[in-house]
Amino acid sequence: MKPVRILTTGGTLDKVHDWRTENIAFAGQGKSQVPEVLDNGRCYFPAVEQLFQIDSLEMTETYRQLILERVMAAKEEAIVITHGTSTMDQTAHFLAKRNLGKTIVLTGAMRPFSLFVSDAGFNLGGAIIAAQALDHGVYGVMNGRVIPAASLKKNEQLGRFDA
Amino acid sequence: MKPVRILTTGGTLDKVHDWRTENIAFAGQGKSQVPEVLDNGRCYFPAVEQLFQIDSLEMTETYRQLILERVMAAKEEAIVITHGTSTMDQTAHFLAKRNLGKTIVLTGAMRPFSLFVSDAGFNLGGAIIAAQALDHGVYGVMNGRVIPAASLKKNEQLGRFDA
Amino acid sequence: MKPVRILTTGGTLDKVHDWRTENIAFAGQGKSQVPEVLDNGRCYFPAVEQLFQIDSLEMTETYRQLILERVMAAKEEAIVITHGTSTMDQTAHFLAKRNLGKTIVLTGAMRPFSLFVSDAGFNLGGAIIAAQALDHGVYGVMNGRVIPAASLKKNEQLGRFDA
Amino acid sequence: MKPVRILTTGGTLDKVHDWRTENIAFAGQGKSQVPEVLDNGRCYFPAVEQLFQIDSLEMTETYRQLILERVMAAKEEAIVITHGTSTMDQTAHFLAKRNLGKTIVLTGAMRPFSLFVSDAGFNLGGAIIAAQALDHGVYGVMNGRVIPAASLKKNEQLGRFDA
Repeated sequence: MKPVRILTTGGTLDKVHDWRTENIAFAGQGKSQVPEVLDNGRCYFPAVEQLFQIDSLEMTETYRQLILERVMAAKEEAIVITHGTSTMDQTAHFLAKRNLGKTIVLTGAMRPFSLFVSDAGFNLGGAIIAAQALDHGVYGVMNGRVIPAASLKKNEQLGRFDA
Repeated sequence: MKPVRILTTGGTLDKVHDWRTENIAFAGQGKSQVPEVLDNGRCYFPAVEQLFQIDSLEMTETYRQLILERVMAAKEEAIVITHGTSTMDQTAHFLAKRNLGKTIVLTGAMRPFSLFVSDAGFNLGGAIIAAQALDHGVYGVMNGRVIPAASLKKNEQLGRFDA
Repeated sequence: MKPVRILTTGGTLDKVHDWRTENIAFAGQGKSQVPEVLDNGRCYFPAVEQLFQIDSLEMTETYRQLILERVMAAKEEAIVITHGTSTMDQTAHFLAKRNLGKTIVLTGAMRPFSLFVSDAGFNLGGAIIAAQALDHGVYGVMNGRVIPAASLKKNEQLGRFDA
Repeated sequence: MKPVRILTTGGTLDKVHDWRTENIAFAGQGKSQVPEVLDNGRCYFPAVEQLFQIDSLEMTETYRQLILERVMAAKEEAIVITHGTSTMDQTAHFLAKRNLGKTIVLTGAMRPFSLFVSDAGFNLGGAIIAAQALDHGVYGVMNGRVIPAASLKKNEQLGRFDA
């Protein structure tokens, strides 16, 4: 029974429908959906820390540096990071270069949690298990697969990650 | 990248609203919801084998024997079994007594998948990762926790499984 | 633009999934779902008055007398009553015997609003329009139909009301 | 009991989430969601005729002429038109100029039906009742209100139509 910390960074998982623009966007208040995903999963033990809410296309080295600092500051060894899928691999590579002595699992969603029929719960449920079960290292967990950072790559055609 | 087989046995996860009786029950046709849970999770690789659709309060030794036979017959080493939560621990103990040389993960849901706001995807997403990541043995995966068969026990008061 | 009052009495529309009993039942707190149905419909003008939360099989003359009193006490001429479908016709007949000088529309649902894919919004949306558009009298509005009290009758086989 | 015909023209009601572009857009196949809205409402009697699937910002006189022709060709006197909200008033004015001898009700949604928590069912349920209950003329039915064509106007600030 390991303590788990979830760092949220935004991505599609956290977006909602904006009726004004008729688009999918981050809510004005910027509150992550992750606590609600956990509530649906009746999973109450992880610590949740919202870092920011950005599209992963906006992810820069500064944002990645902040993620790194929060991973290092965490007292937990098992870390889940929710992240947009487009640049999830780059953040995984960035973190994998360090020797952090933790199990770090990146996950996200192709369809926002707020649209009800979403992969968010399935992916986060997998990531939380992976963070507890896997050896130290950096991984992506998407669509039922554990993928080491080095081979993580979104299949843009099919909208999923293959192992 | 391990092949995974999912054996479905019913339980709350598979129930639907029946407007005639105004209850939650198995659909007349008896088709499991598991393929749809996987579809939501964009998870297409596991083999799915529907064994039966029963409430876990109806689970008998004969049903458990059938589960055992199908676990042994499976060519996959990584096995997920969807199961009602009330007697999940007993089926886990039953399977744990045998030395099956496989990683067997039981999972289920407290709220039916068909009601949209459900723990089914979260739990199944976790179970599929666990079946690939854990050593041989029998486990329950519920609410973000991996629980060895020996200590698996539903918290009836809180409606969850604690590790 | 007529003011509308909605009197809620329970029925399937207001039930929720109870994970303890694995049934569909009224929530412990007894708060009607009608305000949320209205919120989904972006319909903010009706007054909502929760009378009680009962299954319509429990509807007695005393409950009906209370409904009658609240209809008469309402300052609005356009009244919607949410009601279970099983005895909706009897309450409609009861009210139709009085000459109330109001447009009274009974409506409900075959599937609870809380299960997301429900007829509740469709029926309530129709009932609110009917209460404003129809002449004084007592009607049921279900499944897209306006049905005068005298001919209101649930089709138990098909789970709907036919005009 | 009047026969009702629904002409679908697209609008937000019919849009779905497109995971490739991460936007809300019409599905590639272009099938209207209206039959599913009716199915949820257990409302099986209206004839449904899909005219096209466009954003109401793309609505031109040619599209309006086509709507007019299909209204006139319909054997039903009670007509519902699903339409985007941005130019619903203009199409209503266009139709109101003709003396069509029918009850024509425009409706739509601020949030797509496919996102589950939507005003689509509420509005369509109201429009179908209005088409049967109102005198000949052209109306908008949104958010529980019947609004004659002449005074139909979206409140862009609040995302609704006020009567």
